[in-house]
Amino acid sequence: MPIRNIAIGRPEEAYHPHALKAALAEFFSTLIFVFAGEGSGMAFNKLTDNGSTTPSGLVAAALAHGFGLFVAVSVGANISGGHVNPAVTFGAFIGGNITLLRGILYWIAQLLGSTVACLLLKFATGGLTTSAFALSSGVSVWNALVFEIVMTFGLVYTVYATAIDPKKGSVGTIAPIAIGFIVGANILAGGAFDGASMNPAVSFGPALVSWDWTNHWVYWVGPLIGGGIAGLIYEIIFISHTHEALPTTDY
Amino acid sequence: MPIRNIAIGRPEEAYHPHALKAALAEFFSTLIFVFAGEGSGMAFNKLTDNGSTTPSGLVAAALAHGFGLFVAVSVGANISGGHVNPAVTFGAFIGGNITLLRGILYWIAQLLGSTVACLLLKFATGGLTTSAFALSSGVSVWNALVFEIVMTFGLVYTVYATAIDPKKGSVGTIAPIAIGFIVGANILAGGAFDGASMNPAVSFGPALVSWDWTNHWVYWVGPLIGGGIAGLIYEIIFISHTHEALPTTDY
Amino acid sequence: MPIRNIAIGRPEEAYHPHALKAALAEFFSTLIFVFAGEGSGMAFNKLTDNGSTTPSGLVAAALAHGFGLFVAVSVGANISGGHVNPAVTFGAFIGGNITLLRGILYWIAQLLGSTVACLLLKFATGGLTTSAFALSSGVSVWNALVFEIVMTFGLVYTVYATAIDPKKGSVGTIAPIAIGFIVGANILAGGAFDGASMNPAVSFGPALVSWDWTNHWVYWVGPLIGGGIAGLIYEIIFISHTHEALPTTDY
Amino acid sequence: MPIRNIAIGRPEEAYHPHALKAALAEFFSTLIFVFAGEGSGMAFNKLTDNGSTTPSGLVAAALAHGFGLFVAVSVGANISGGHVNPAVTFGAFIGGNITLLRGILYWIAQLLGSTVACLLLKFATGGLTTSAFALSSGVSVWNALVFEIVMTFGLVYTVYATAIDPKKGSVGTIAPIAIGFIVGANILAGGAFDGASMNPAVSFGPALVSWDWTNHWVYWVGPLIGGGIAGLIYEIIFISHTHEALPTTDY
Repeated sequence: MPIRNIAIGRPEEAYHPHALKAALAEFFSTLIFVFAGEGSGMAFNKLTDNGSTTPSGLVAAALAHGFGLFVAVSVGANISGGHVNPAVTFGAFIGGNITLLRGILYWIAQLLGSTVACLLLKFATGGLTTSAFALSSGVSVWNALVFEIVMTFGLVYTVYATAIDPKKGSVGTIAPIAIGFIVGANILAGGAFDGASMNPAVSFGPALVSWDWTNHWVYWVGPLIGGGIAGLIYEIIFISHTHEALPTTDY
Repeated sequence: MPIRNIAIGRPEEAYHPHALKAALAEFFSTLIFVFAGEGSGMAFNKLTDNGSTTPSGLVAAALAHGFGLFVAVSVGANISGGHVNPAVTFGAFIGGNITLLRGILYWIAQLLGSTVACLLLKFATGGLTTSAFALSSGVSVWNALVFEIVMTFGLVYTVYATAIDPKKGSVGTIAPIAIGFIVGANILAGGAFDGASMNPAVSFGPALVSWDWTNHWVYWVGPLIGGGIAGLIYEIIFISHTHEALPTTDY
Repeated sequence: MPIRNIAIGRPEEAYHPHALKAALAEFFSTLIFVFAGEGSGMAFNKLTDNGSTTPSGLVAAALAHGFGLFVAVSVGANISGGHVNPAVTFGAFIGGNITLLRGILYWIAQLLGSTVACLLLKFATGGLTTSAFALSSGVSVWNALVFEIVMTFGLVYTVYATAIDPKKGSVGTIAPIAIGFIVGANILAGGAFDGASMNPAVSFGPALVSWDWTNHWVYWVGPLIGGGIAGLIYEIIFISHTHEALPTTDY
Repeated sequence: MPIRNIAIGRPEEAYHPHALKAALAEFFSTLIFVFAGEGSGMAFNKLTDNGSTTPSGLVAAALAHGFGLFVAVSVGANISGGHVNPAVTFGAFIGGNITLLRGILYWIAQLLGSTVACLLLKFATGGLTTSAFALSSGVSVWNALVFEIVMTFGLVYTVYATAIDPKKGSVGTIAPIAIGFIVGANILAGGAFDGASMNPAVSFGPALVSWDWTNHWVYWVGPLIGGGIAGLIYEIIFISHTHEALPTTDY
């Protein structure tokens, strides 16, 4: 199944000397993504004097994150697989599509990329706050947890179906767009409730630079649970079985 | 015509033991789609205190449904054909591209996926209403019926031209984007009048969970008529004839 | 160069009995496009009580037309070439890529498709006006003419570069998206000044059904001049010369 | 590595007689891009009576530039490589992917294209100002410089990863979309602070036609630094090494 190497990298490549190069690609991809995404939130705050979210503010956030993630996945796709997200890396690990060591390298690179993006934003905006993800009024941590689990499930399920699955076919060509746009779509729903992170690195950088850790755990636990479940389900139901009996022309 | 199997599945596969796997793919695709789509409507209601629709609210709804459906079709494309819509399944059945049994399985999966998405939304939002599709003031059921028929005709015609037609060529690569974006475009028109469902499953979940069945039949009859007509017309005019006399390089 | 047949159809096919089938595809494509595009304008009028255009109204119009045209081109691409626009057909004719007879058939189908879309919109909205394209206050017909010429030049240049040019390569796969999105981009500029039609069929249907022909000629003369110039320039500079001396691997 | 010729052109082609044709393609691409992009800003000014930027104004600018650049890159891709930006040309030069002579030709064509677009806009709008890029209140030139450096780094990094890199694979098919959309995403962040140019040609035309050169140097120095760094880093880290030891199936 050499085709699977293209998108994610197989275990046998885990100790490859070029894992570092892949981690560097994750760093740059996450930096580019978070700079646009978090930057769009800071732009909204500047334009509205920190006003509360509006429907067009949500559209701006959805497009900045959707477009930015699509690009970040595209530019990393052939080097690191374009995870740009610890929950995606975790989901790939759970499904057996990346080794632990390489996964840890990716996590470090993703968290660093997000942090550097936020530091650059803080300087470029003359010191504006890199707002941490937070719950809207009336939203409990359990509400937010469900949001993050379901939305990240959708994201990692999309990664599996369009980028990892050996049967992906021509869908693989548009995989980065699909991965970016499911995040854009989910922000239009969850963004009004808990910010719709779906990505611990996206939450980590702003929290670290603004040193605001309120409910930060939700943005790790939710995405990791959702991403892990997606990895397990997709690998078991839609990938593993096909190794056995199905002819390749089944679909 | 093995190429047609890729997108929709041919009758001979109807009793295939893996029809259940395809139904499961429909379930997950519909869940992901409805969570983003219906969730975006609930987000608008939260941000505007249940205010009436605005142009930027319509843009948010169009992008959430357009992006979400594009992704839902992408992730299901290689497993179930990515219908995500009883009207698409019905249109495929009318054109002879799916068997009755498999179609019924798809319908059940789609309705379940939409219902579970709405239950998750109800819990994640702390009990907000999963608003059912409804007619705007001054719009009669016959107006809405025409809207749903015409818009679903466009949707299923798009499915046929970009995903089912054996002559689709490289258009097939961008088929999921086209299928998602025709829904986004139609919402920018019909959304202000009848909500622009084009999909009985999308209407069923919110109606069931909020137990509001006012004019619900419009959102079944309209899409099924529009989808059925599209399937008939496209199959007869643009597909069937090519089996006979035309050389494959005709276009 | 059989590859050119895929997108536009070569003169030798002009009297082909299946030209009628291609015209039918133009009819359906234009109907789908105009229903979403003109419908989005009527939705804005309904939501704002015929208020004046706002930036988010312009975004809605751009997305409805951009997404709608992308889909309309996609679904017609393999049957008629997906012109969906008399100015594109004229530009293809000027460059020698379609015969006069077939071009006239396309024009009739496009104008009919737009008219039927507007009649359906009139009925589905309970009789709302299908607003004709018009000049904003302070915009002269000469201003509008320049807008239509330049914007349609960009549109038909895009059609040539991504769909007709035999050297299009993998750009051909995303051609329908590019063709739709240049219209979306141009609406965000010209929409505030003259409505940004770039397409005589798009202007004809609403004018006929609302019987408002004020300055209607601008929306024919501008697009035909712009489209004709684009066809001439692209064919002469970027296509014709390559028939002679250049090796195919020049770029 | 003949594949690299497709997107950018290799040094050995620099003195090719058809470099002029490529420059002409850059001229038309930049004209089309700037007409939509700068035109969208003038439309916003008209609709809001020169009001200050709003979130939906930022969305309109992001879509006009994102869609417009995607198209401009698409239509130029097979002729000139679709730079449409002196910073991209400079980044390609720094990485050794274009010769100095051809690069200078591209620069002239890009600056001319932007200028002609602004002259056409000035005439078509009846003499409205082609607003030059400017710093928002509270934004220093050093802030803006960092914004332009980081955002253009992301843009040129995207050009390298999706269009120049010989290992780009199927990502190359969607390269023009990625290149356009990273600009759209970045505008949603930087647009509220310094206009988010990332492109000296985009800033040059409006400055020349409105004769407003305030802080104009920032929009040259920032993009050239960011683009140059991206070219160096990507070429050294992700391209050059692969010429030596790595098997082509490494990723």
